[in-house]
Amino acid sequence: MEVLISEVGPRDGLQSIAQILPTEAKKKWISMAWEAGVREIEVGSFVPAKLLPQLADTAEIVRYATQIEGLTIAALVPNARGAADAIAAGAHKITLPLSCSETHSLANLRRTHAQVIEEARRIGELIRELPEGERPHFEGSLSTAFGCTLEGEVPQAKVLELAEALLEAGCDEVGLADTTGYADPRSVQTMIRALWSAFGKGALTGIHLHNTRGLGIANAFAAFEAGLTTFDSSLGGIGGCPFAPGASGNIVTEDLVFMFEAMGVKTGIDLEALFAVREYLQGVIGDEPLYGFAPLAGLPLGFTPATIDRTGATE
Amino acid sequence: MEVLISEVGPRDGLQSIAQILPTEAKKKWISMAWEAGVREIEVGSFVPAKLLPQLADTAEIVRYATQIEGLTIAALVPNARGAADAIAAGAHKITLPLSCSETHSLANLRRTHAQVIEEARRIGELIRELPEGERPHFEGSLSTAFGCTLEGEVPQAKVLELAEALLEAGCDEVGLADTTGYADPRSVQTMIRALWSAFGKGALTGIHLHNTRGLGIANAFAAFEAGLTTFDSSLGGIGGCPFAPGASGNIVTEDLVFMFEAMGVKTGIDLEALFAVREYLQGVIGDEPLYGFAPLAGLPLGFTPATIDRTGATE
Repeated sequence: MEVLISEVGPRDGLQSIAQILPTEAKKKWISMAWEAGVREIEVGSFVPAKLLPQLADTAEIVRYATQIEGLTIAALVPNARGAADAIAAGAHKITLPLSCSETHSLANLRRTHAQVIEEARRIGELIRELPEGERPHFEGSLSTAFGCTLEGEVPQAKVLELAEALLEAGCDEVGLADTTGYADPRSVQTMIRALWSAFGKGALTGIHLHNTRGLGIANAFAAFEAGLTTFDSSLGGIGGCPFAPGASGNIVTEDLVFMFEAMGVKTGIDLEALFAVREYLQGVIGDEPLYGFAPLAGLPLGFTPATIDRTGATE
Repeated sequence: MEVLISEVGPRDGLQSIAQILPTEAKKKWISMAWEAGVREIEVGSFVPAKLLPQLADTAEIVRYATQIEGLTIAALVPNARGAADAIAAGAHKITLPLSCSETHSLANLRRTHAQVIEEARRIGELIRELPEGERPHFEGSLSTAFGCTLEGEVPQAKVLELAEALLEAGCDEVGLADTTGYADPRSVQTMIRALWSAFGKGALTGIHLHNTRGLGIANAFAAFEAGLTTFDSSLGGIGGCPFAPGASGNIVTEDLVFMFEAMGVKTGIDLEALFAVREYLQGVIGDEPLYGFAPLAGLPLGFTPATIDRTGATE
């Protein structure tokens, strides 16, 4: 059994801290992650540099990373203009976030649901104009799907309605995102089953979880049990959670990979090499705290990861 | 659906820190926890005071706590002598730990497996001599059941063999304990099923988890999914983990209760009242760090816990 770990630290992690990581350090991080076995990385966001100066070099990072054979390069885009830039840079996967809470969407992006869906439709058109082999994978991310700090509960019917609108607008699939740390293992499984029941298993393969209230890794296990195969996480949980001091923002890649490898589920990632990437990141990120427990405790004595072939080499 | 949260902070938490919490503060903690809805507390350990001065007042604490109607008072005992003291003080539940790794048993307790089993047999005799209504529940705790920092992997056959010996010696049930933080969700479920298959569901209802490598809450969810109903945890994860700075020792009661209540599973515990107990503990414990995320982030907007009856009052 295998899962895909999608490293989002260079985007979601770095956008959450004030410090700007130098372009060369980002490149080194990405190449080290690749060498450790990471096969998908969300490297940045195509937003105006004045809004997120931390990610101003996204186009350059995408161009660099797409030269690494076999690595899937994902990028976040807020609208069709960003998508055009992402396509020009060569991104393999484009993610458009849509906040299921319209209050949150208006507060954070100043856009109604209808306006975001219209952007999705325009991105779908942009992609269909490309030759078939050059089309990026297009995901609509259902953020605040498990609840919103402004609206509270988000009805499942609303999530399904927006998922349908995104798929009709041209998204290849939707993703679930617990932006606010409101999800629990049961709500994760319930939402996955509802989306699969409505749109089929191909419409949803991944989830983006935060650890705001300590349930992030449990929610990932619940999503895996329900059948999802792609998990966003960030190295060292970089960026933290502004609402919970001591909590990572995204779930921590190291702990997530440790869980899967311990369970006999292959991530393709060598844990010791991943810990070395963490060491590198800590060295270049200054005072910014990193999170996670497995790298501090180290691997269990005699630990046998799933990602080992019979000759003992990492696959 | 309901689960029982067994608060072990006054024993496992306090024995892991150098500071000695005053007896009056322990009593206040226990009574506040009771008021918040906690229904089982492991209040101490009947070991010589010179070994664990933090728990030297265990007999007094047991006598105090047994006066709280409806609260189950558990105590750890290292041997039959400790069990006799626990019985004299009036403990409702007695737990004898047996380390599944004999190397660990010899290093930490200077006892072979056979010697610990013999203590279990003597405790069983002590209990059978009591009038039927006065017999405490007797649990044999299978510590290092998921692996040992000295031996590495502990074979499942060894865990089953020791469980059988404990049950034959007179234990009412066995408990699983991941002393070392080696467990993962799959190994937790596999071990539960193996024990149930061999000895029936009555032989195992509870699990004691640590968060050493970040999987503690995920392991608790996995154990719940497999069918266990009793979960040890400690308030604020007090005591920490000496092997993983920043990690709690035991899983954190607040996050565990939040998970269950969010999932619609009743713990009987009022989360806001539990957070108030944490505040109290932080106030009396000095510089000792507390862990957990839910109390820092607070409850989600519009959160509806499972433990609410139709009149809106906490059950």
